[in-house]
Amino acid sequence: MKYELYYWPGIQGRGEFARLVLEDAGAEYVDVAREPGGMKKMEAALEGEFKQLLPFAPPFLRAGDVVLAQTALITSFLGERLGLAPKDEQGKLAAMTIAMTIADLVGEVHDTHHPTSVEVRYEDQKAAAKERAAAFRENRIPKFLGWLESTLERNGDVMVGENVSYVDLSTFQVVVGLEYAFPHAMNKVTKDTPKLLALRDRIAKRPKLGAYLASKRRIPFNQQGIFRHYKELDPA
Amino acid sequence: MKYELYYWPGIQGRGEFARLVLEDAGAEYVDVAREPGGMKKMEAALEGEFKQLLPFAPPFLRAGDVVLAQTALITSFLGERLGLAPKDEQGKLAAMTIAMTIADLVGEVHDTHHPTSVEVRYEDQKAAAKERAAAFRENRIPKFLGWLESTLERNGDVMVGENVSYVDLSTFQVVVGLEYAFPHAMNKVTKDTPKLLALRDRIAKRPKLGAYLASKRRIPFNQQGIFRHYKELDPA
Repeated sequence: MKYELYYWPGIQGRGEFARLVLEDAGAEYVDVAREPGGMKKMEAALEGEFKQLLPFAPPFLRAGDVVLAQTALITSFLGERLGLAPKDEQGKLAAMTIAMTIADLVGEVHDTHHPTSVEVRYEDQKAAAKERAAAFRENRIPKFLGWLESTLERNGDVMVGENVSYVDLSTFQVVVGLEYAFPHAMNKVTKDTPKLLALRDRIAKRPKLGAYLASKRRIPFNQQGIFRHYKELDPA
Repeated sequence: MKYELYYWPGIQGRGEFARLVLEDAGAEYVDVAREPGGMKKMEAALEGEFKQLLPFAPPFLRAGDVVLAQTALITSFLGERLGLAPKDEQGKLAAMTIAMTIADLVGEVHDTHHPTSVEVRYEDQKAAAKERAAAFRENRIPKFLGWLESTLERNGDVMVGENVSYVDLSTFQVVVGLEYAFPHAMNKVTKDTPKLLALRDRIAKRPKLGAYLASKRRIPFNQQGIFRHYKELDPA
């Protein structure tokens, strides 16, 4: 089975959470919009080409005859198919709960640079962004990261179950994304999250994932993605 | 099986999406925090009493030995157990995709009155709220509702599959919530979403759900919930 991932070609963004599962599992996949003519294929899907589902927005995934969207759902679907998910009901539900909470955190990251409108450039909503980013740094990063750390403390070396799952890959991604976007704020918070940093390091060293991270397939973080670094939003 | 739903007792909020599934199915459940001593029980769970999962925030659900959180996951879990969900894989995935997109919309509704910080009162972030609500009314309501309408147009009288599912109940709830919060904006947009309004009406007339909506168990919309009506955020 060759998976088809549909996501914006120039950024890590939400699509990266799906890429990490595909790469860590060594799955065969096409990153559709990064192929020649792929943007047109993605637009056709957004306009209703898939009979099974009208996606609201990228990322979305085609797996044979099946189509689905929403980052956390894609990662859980892939994780369960590719051996990167718990097998028992409680494990599956806990994994999905955590993945959806990480997706909420990613949404809040997005809103630090787009607090009032997704249709308007960051530069035209800087005042509100400054306020929102301050609240995010002071309250939300500690709250979310503290919760991820507590979850690890309760469970052990992985977020859920006994083996590395898609949830650990998503945890890695949100931590490194936050470190790119908010290095100063993260320096303060991660003093209290040693298990989370150790997990980040273990995940980065996994053979297939490490090779991917060092490859050209891994798009560098940049100022068009969801994790963006604006100095004024992360003062020293 | 007696389900235990944990959510803030004074508002519909995100918990209402779960209540609608439980009520429409006629399931036995306890709305824990609305019972005597229930808030303490909810706080204990948030502090880590459940071995299976540390919830980040309400709503969360206990179903026997299983614990889960996140609105869309709770509704899909209940829907699948209580006969309010598609049975085939594509149907389940499409249902969850739509439910998660509705959850995103609900998050955006929340941010119209809390655009910069959840820790600060609406009254202290009114300027940003005015900007965010304007963008929400002009761009996001038409985009989300247009997408829900298109999904209905493609599928028929229900959002997914052939029978009423939890997705239809969630669609009902987000439409009536938006009508409470943004009556003027909704008046304009719903001219173009006749199928969505017809679905809202059909759902409201379902025997068990209609009885619930007319009962005291249905908390009225109010200014502490997620759907709030501020005149200045919905000008005529």
